[in-house]
Order: sequence, then structure tokens, then C-alpha cells
Amino acid sequence: MASIADQWLRDIVRILYQRRTLTRSDIVGVTGLNAASVSLALRHLLRNGTILKVGELQSNGGRRREVFTLNGEAAYFVGVDLEGLRLRFALSNCVGDIRYRWEEDLEFGQPLDIGKVVEGIRRVMRELDPIQRERVIAVGVSYPGLLDEEGRLTAFNLGWRGFPIRDELAAATDLPVFLEPDKHSCVLAERWLGRAQNSKSGLFLIIERGIGLGMFLEGKPIGGWHAMAGELGHCKIDPDAPDVCGCGARGCLEAIASSPNIVRQYVERAGLSGRAAAEVRVSDVFQRARQGDAAAQAVVERAGNALGLALSHAVNLLNPEIIVMGGDVLGAEDVLLPVVEASLERNALPNLTQDLTITMSGLGLDIRLKGAASLAFRKSLEDSSLLKKMCSPLVMRYGPVAARATR
Amino acid sequence: MASIADQWLRDIVRILYQRRTLTRSDIVGVTGLNAASVSLALRHLLRNGTILKVGELQSNGGRRREVFTLNGEAAYFVGVDLEGLRLRFALSNCVGDIRYRWEEDLEFGQPLDIGKVVEGIRRVMRELDPIQRERVIAVGVSYPGLLDEEGRLTAFNLGWRGFPIRDELAAATDLPVFLEPDKHSCVLAERWLGRAQNSKSGLFLIIERGIGLGMFLEGKPIGGWHAMAGELGHCKIDPDAPDVCGCGARGCLEAIASSPNIVRQYVERAGLSGRAAAEVRVSDVFQRARQGDAAAQAVVERAGNALGLALSHAVNLLNPEIIVMGGDVLGAEDVLLPVVEASLERNALPNLTQDLTITMSGLGLDIRLKGAASLAFRKSLEDSSLLKKMCSPLVMRYGPVAARATR
Repeated sequence: MASIADQWLRDIVRILYQRRTLTRSDIVGVTGLNAASVSLALRHLLRNGTILKVGELQSNGGRRREVFTLNGEAAYFVGVDLEGLRLRFALSNCVGDIRYRWEEDLEFGQPLDIGKVVEGIRRVMRELDPIQRERVIAVGVSYPGLLDEEGRLTAFNLGWRGFPIRDELAAATDLPVFLEPDKHSCVLAERWLGRAQNSKSGLFLIIERGIGLGMFLEGKPIGGWHAMAGELGHCKIDPDAPDVCGCGARGCLEAIASSPNIVRQYVERAGLSGRAAAEVRVSDVFQRARQGDAAAQAVVERAGNALGLALSHAVNLLNPEIIVMGGDVLGAEDVLLPVVEASLERNALPNLTQDLTITMSGLGLDIRLKGAASLAFRKSLEDSSLLKKMCSPLVMRYGPVAARATR
Repeated sequence: MASIADQWLRDIVRILYQRRTLTRSDIVGVTGLNAASVSLALRHLLRNGTILKVGELQSNGGRRREVFTLNGEAAYFVGVDLEGLRLRFALSNCVGDIRYRWEEDLEFGQPLDIGKVVEGIRRVMRELDPIQRERVIAVGVSYPGLLDEEGRLTAFNLGWRGFPIRDELAAATDLPVFLEPDKHSCVLAERWLGRAQNSKSGLFLIIERGIGLGMFLEGKPIGGWHAMAGELGHCKIDPDAPDVCGCGARGCLEAIASSPNIVRQYVERAGLSGRAAAEVRVSDVFQRARQGDAAAQAVVERAGNALGLALSHAVNLLNPEIIVMGGDVLGAEDVLLPVVEASLERNALPNLTQDLTITMSGLGLDIRLKGAASLAFRKSLEDSSLLKKMCSPLVMRYGPVAARATR
């Protein structure tokens, strides 16, 4: 048998991960590999059970074209999201679907115990039977804060300073561990699994307690000199505004449009106090705006205008193809998005918005977790021995998948 | 003789271009090549006259270390700056110094005649004698507007729509022609020849009739989806400002801080009219501010504050290592730069400015022209046959440079 280049396997597995189902000629067209290499690699992957034939297209000329898909169960990946207030764990299959997930609230103000992270990873892996567990390839971690080159993490809301997370997790799980800043996890999840799949340059705006912007340009995430790029939340949108930001300054976007600040402004405008004030969540503000509450509408209007103005700076500077929004605003597509879009169009250079797409994420609240699992997948593709493991012959609980060579 | 890899030559020539003089061990350290390869390549380059030995360092231990430099006359490059109001041409030597330059004003409102560009290139090349002319390697062009993949340029202020500039120039000059957007030329000139040489991420702010931002991140220039990134001039700095921008909107940075708008505001504040008003140049406004003229100081203060606020957005988003300013503000380091810096520090996230460098360009008004010539050099390095031509044995007017092999 002719030998099969890693690059063929890598390209085919990557493209099936992103596009889900493709014919042989699709694969040739998208990867640019030659037809003979693709045929050889497909035969190998089919035999090993890494890919499956899911159907045939009948074309006019009468020739049938087989449709291939990645076998979701060919490999598993663990994703970990160290959000700060909560730990989230997922076991994803080979096509990025979450098979098992587990989350745990953290005690506020306590440094995070690494044992909890290890236990969370083991917990999702216990959902697999021993044979499947052999196919767990790697762990991906989405982290807040700053990681140094030796894999030590400093993150204030985890209570860590130079904690050797990469080594600790690799030793405890006996798996390769890949780490990525949380802003990158979001934007790369959109690029690999979400609405930015066909884009070369995109922004991901996440609105939660804070506001951050993940960016990929010419296909690559932007980190900045000290890995601190994306601080859109602290752009001064209105230097004369009375709102004081968590950073101490006035007029930051975050002081006007983050979830707690949307709630704060609504409570102030509606004149709420005591328990009524304490119980308001940001989704309530959106719901009341939807129902016609004037105070809620004014707050949403102000937040949306500020978001659009801040995004206009990012659009003027970076000329992106798509902006995806996520976080706590996911349910507010109807009330918030039109305000943001109108403000963006009013404030950015018209040439740059005329065919710009702006949309809410379809990946939900688990976006960082999906991003972390997809990180493990992406990095495993780049590593020849992990790629080999993903593409090795698969034995399912009920025996080998595709029996003999089809040749 | 053992064969010499292109990569060794490329790395050594590149690093001597950037650092000017280096010892053998410097070269080993910076390029990461092994010492034997470096010695072999240096001997080859010395013999061919591509590099010169310019001295020896005596160290304590008594061992002398030779110092090498690139021979400026080993190769020549033509740079062309299609600014819009003026054509600029330069012949640069192999270390980026301009040897001859020529410029020509364009008639306003007339489409540019390509014959003028060809004639300008020929004119600077005629300054070389025939033997030297053989060493002209390539032409680099800095262009406004948008270039498509077939090398056709659309630029309104040149009166061109889809003009096949690359093919026309290549045919007329019989040289390889490389093209780059003007924003990139500036920022890459800073990266290759100027103050951003040791930086991986930098911004170049150019203030002229308009205001643009060139960016390189992780060493690469950022173009954007439609190659329209860097429109900092149209960021809305003060949406309520009375100043109307050329784009029709209010509150753009350009309407407050471009050269004509600095002049306009000064004329208004100082109550000038007629000839006194018409004769004011932007350098006069800086000079009067320097002399204590209150109207001039107020205008410079307002422009500097706006520039600092706009840059704070870019800094928050991109976390650059260095910002270089150029264009018409080059002589205003004393009056403008401190205002910009103070505003930037007030408005950006403190973490991101604490070790950020902000400086005026040292490359002068010919920055785009130097960038264009350096583009021709950089692209020639990447092309094996052009690299070979740069490093081929040099015959000077008075005969071969370095006679025999030194071995």
C-alpha cells in the first residue's frame, strides 16, 4: 500500500469537522489535494472507521457520488472553561458535539483548588466505557488571565499567581493539555463551529460581567504584545458620562453596557430598591423592554448605542467580515441587536458596514467550553502522533467498525 | 565547495539590512543558524562583494572579531510613491539609503498617465552607469486605493479604475514589480528601517490631508477583509462636535486633527481671512503654538487630545508595543507629542500604556518612498532567483571587488 501523508489526513479530517458532510470531489476542491491522494486517504479513513459513508448523491449523468462524514465517535476531547465563578467541563466527540457536561460553582474569594479541575475532567471521562476512553485524545482549557511560556497561569479571579496549570493537569490526566485565552476560545469556536466558519476575519463581542472582544484576522487570533488585546470594554465611549467603571475611569463601554451595569441603570431609572432591585437580572431588563417598559427601553437603547459606537471603532480599524455577539445578551436578539446595528451603521465608515454581517452567536452559553474542546481537536490535528491516534483503527463496543479493506 | 543554502544567505542579508553591522557571533545568535553555515555563507558573500568587512573588535581575551556590513552597492531597488498629488521616485541602495530621488507634481483632477510613472523610474535608473544598472533588482510601489488579485488598481485620486499597473510597469521596465498599500508601506518602513525594528506589533499613525493607521501584528501587516483596515481618521471621537468631515459625518478624528483641519480651526479661532488665512500652513500653527499664541495652542491641544483618544481605542483593542507618528506632524514633536501622550494615558487602560513606546518617525517625509524601496528589497529576498542576483559576484566600475577567495 502506498503511504498516506499526514497532511492528507489532516486536511480531510479538518474539512469534514468544519463542513460535516462532503463528497470526494468536494474534498478535492476544498483541500486542493490531488484526486488520487484523496481517494487513497478516504479509503484508509473508511477502513479505520474514522469517517463514515452516509449516503450517495445521484447526479444527472447517472454517476453516484458518495457522501462522507467524520465518525463522531472516532475520538473524544475534553474541554474545560475556567470562567472564574464556575468551572465547566465537557466531553466532546470528534465533530465538536458535547456528549457529557458537568459544572460546578466556585466559592467566591477562594483560590481555585486544582484538584477540582482534575476531578471534573475525570468525571466527564467516566461517562465513557474503557474502550472509548482510549480514544480521548487531549484536553483543551479556556482560561482567564495571563499564561506565561512555561504554562503558568496568573488569574486574579481564580486566586492564582504563576500556577503551573499545564504541568499539573498533564501529570494528573496523562493527556496532552492545550490552553487558550478565553477571548480566543470564543472567537475560535465561532470560526470552527459557529457562524464565522467561512470568514477570514471576524470579531466576537462577549457581554457578561465585563465586555471583551475576541478577534481573528487573516484566519489567526490576535493576542497583542502582552496578550491583552481585545479590551473593547474599556474604550472611552463617552468621557463625560457619569458612569464609573470597575477600572476606576469614567465613560468606559463596560460601565454602560455590561450585564451588571444594564441592571444597575434599570434599577436607578425605574426607582427600584430593596428586594425588587436585588432580584433584577439582565434578562429581565430585556424582557421588560420587549413589553414596552420605558425605563428598560431607555437603558437598552443607551447600551446598544454605546456598543455600536465602540464596535464602529473596531470596524474602522480592522475591516472585519463578521461580528458575532454572545454572552448574556444571547436572548436579546430582538430588542438589542437592531439598536447596535443602527448605531454601528451611523458611526462606522459606510464602505466598511455595507456588507458586514452582525449576528448573535448560535453556540449558546457553552461557547467557551465548545471552544476549549475544539482547541483540543485543532491542536491534536497539528501533532502527528495525536493525529495518528485519531485516525487509528476504531474498535467499537460491538466489534471492529468497518471490517475488511474494501480494495 | 559545500553548497550554500538560500536560507542562510537570506537570513544573513536580512539581518545585516536591519542591523547594519554585526560580528559573526552576532549573526549566529540572531539568525539561529549554526556557526559553520554562517562562516561558509559569510565567506561566499565576502568573495562576491555582497558584504564587506568594516573593522575588527578587539575583545579582552585577545581574539579579534570581524565586523561585517552589507555592501550598499551590491544591489539597487526602485521605490515609487503614488501619493495622489505628487509622484515620488527613488533609487535606493542595498541598505535602504536613497541614492537618487525625483518627484513631480500631478495636475489636479487629471487621470494619471502611466507614461509618467515609467519615465520617472527610467529617470532615477539613468543616474546609474550601465554596470550598476545591471544590479537593479526590482521595483516596489506604494499605492493608494485598492488593488485586485490581477494587479489592477482602482484609486480615485489617481483617476484609475481597474488599471493594470503591475503588468504595465513590468512590461515597460523589464523588472519584477511589487505593490503594497500606502498604509503598509509606512508601517513596514518603520519595521524594516525605522523605530519599530525590534517590535512584533506596532502602529503607524500618519497625519496629512487625511489620517490613517498602518498596523502590523505578530510581525504581519493587517489589511482587513476588503483591504480597508486602518481608517482611524473616521473614528467618531466626538459625535456632538460641530466639525464636519470630508466623509460627510460629524465628529470624525480627521475633521479635528488632519492638517487642513488644524489650519482651518486656527484660521477660525485667530479670526484670519483673505490672504493671511490662505497662507497658513500646518507647520505655522505648530510654530505659533510654540511661541505662545493662544489660538494656536488651543487648536493643537484639541487635535492632540482627539488623537490620543482615538489611539486609546487602537491600543485597547490591539495591545501594541510601539506607536510611530509621521506625516505633517513630524516637526511638532515638542508641542504635539506631549498632548497626544497625556491623552492616550488618560484614556487607555493603564496596563496597556505603561511600557508602550510612542515616538515620531525618524524616516522623514519620504517614508512611503523608503517603504516602497524596502518592499522591493524584502520581496526580492523571498524570491530565490532575485536573491541569487543580489548575491552574485559584483564587478565595480574599477574591476572586481574582492579579488580571490580568502581561504
